[in-house]
Amino acid sequence: MGNKGEKTKETIRRQAYRLFAEKGFQAVTMTDICEKTGLSRGGLYRYYSGTGQIFAEILSEEYVIADRIERKEQAGAILEDMLKAIKSEIMDKELSLSLAIYEYANLGNEDFFTNLNDKARKRWISLLEYGIETGEFQAVDTEQISDMILYYYQGLRMWSRVIPFEEQVAENYVRTVKQLLFGEEKL
Amino acid sequence: MGNKGEKTKETIRRQAYRLFAEKGFQAVTMTDICEKTGLSRGGLYRYYSGTGQIFAEILSEEYVIADRIERKEQAGAILEDMLKAIKSEIMDKELSLSLAIYEYANLGNEDFFTNLNDKARKRWISLLEYGIETGEFQAVDTEQISDMILYYYQGLRMWSRVIPFEEQVAENYVRTVKQLLFGEEKL
Repeated sequence: MGNKGEKTKETIRRQAYRLFAEKGFQAVTMTDICEKTGLSRGGLYRYYSGTGQIFAEILSEEYVIADRIERKEQAGAILEDMLKAIKSEIMDKELSLSLAIYEYANLGNEDFFTNLNDKARKRWISLLEYGIETGEFQAVDTEQISDMILYYYQGLRMWSRVIPFEEQVAENYVRTVKQLLFGEEKL
Repeated sequence: MGNKGEKTKETIRRQAYRLFAEKGFQAVTMTDICEKTGLSRGGLYRYYSGTGQIFAEILSEEYVIADRIERKEQAGAILEDMLKAIKSEIMDKELSLSLAIYEYANLGNEDFFTNLNDKARKRWISLLEYGIETGEFQAVDTEQISDMILYYYQGLRMWSRVIPFEEQVAENYVRTVKQLLFGEEKL
């Protein structure tokens, strides 16, 4: 697919993301996505066969860190960027896909989520291992801390849709992760 | 209300809990609850005016710790019991109310959840402060650690419905909380 095709797909995913965050998974139709993107039905179906395919691709879009580790960037700098992205997601409740994820999971996509979760876990473990190796992070149990980082974040994302959050809630998350890894005093 | 009335209400809540966990909030009707409990419509409405009232009461049932602190029980023992309850909830995906909570929240019950969350937070903060006072826990930032304990747990509860969990995932949670409070070596 050419550059233009990739750009169109990106636009579709970006617009569909907002719809899924707003309405959940099941209430969003291909027609809604046509309206939102201005594409014709034929135009949309050229790229995606249905809302499930679009949603799965959105969820698979990942914050890529393998390249940065490869280039031997500082583990602390990579961590900062990931935490920054997470923090802005937590504070922007309009962007939470939690409800849509729930609905999509209940349609029997367990394997998909198991896979997604595994990948996220491996990504964090690889960053933690890298940072421990370079001596930037403390020698934590990487599996244990990855779990904490991931599920604590998921809990925040879910509740950010349910109740209003103060900035402090997101800051506490960032602070806890950093203190565990950098070992600052008094938690 | 007499003892018998309290018992009937408890039965209603216990049966309704299973229905909400299974179907979410909106799909459960008072008729479903009659069937499940064997109560007549009149019998059920004597105690509850609708599913919203039952659901709100279920969510407000709390693990009570104020009495135990009052009686000067060991903070560590109270913590163990709370973690044990949490762990069994994490491992029993049939008991997760997350989907129902979501639906109920989306019906505009934000204040209710803000209040619920505040109470849970205060409960944890009071236990942490108590344990720090008795010298059993490390001098952690109680608000920060309460957030971690609560949202990490919520993330686990949500994902326990979406993917299958190994026991290790729940154990990592317990271990992280304990290490932060008791300050065991190597996290």
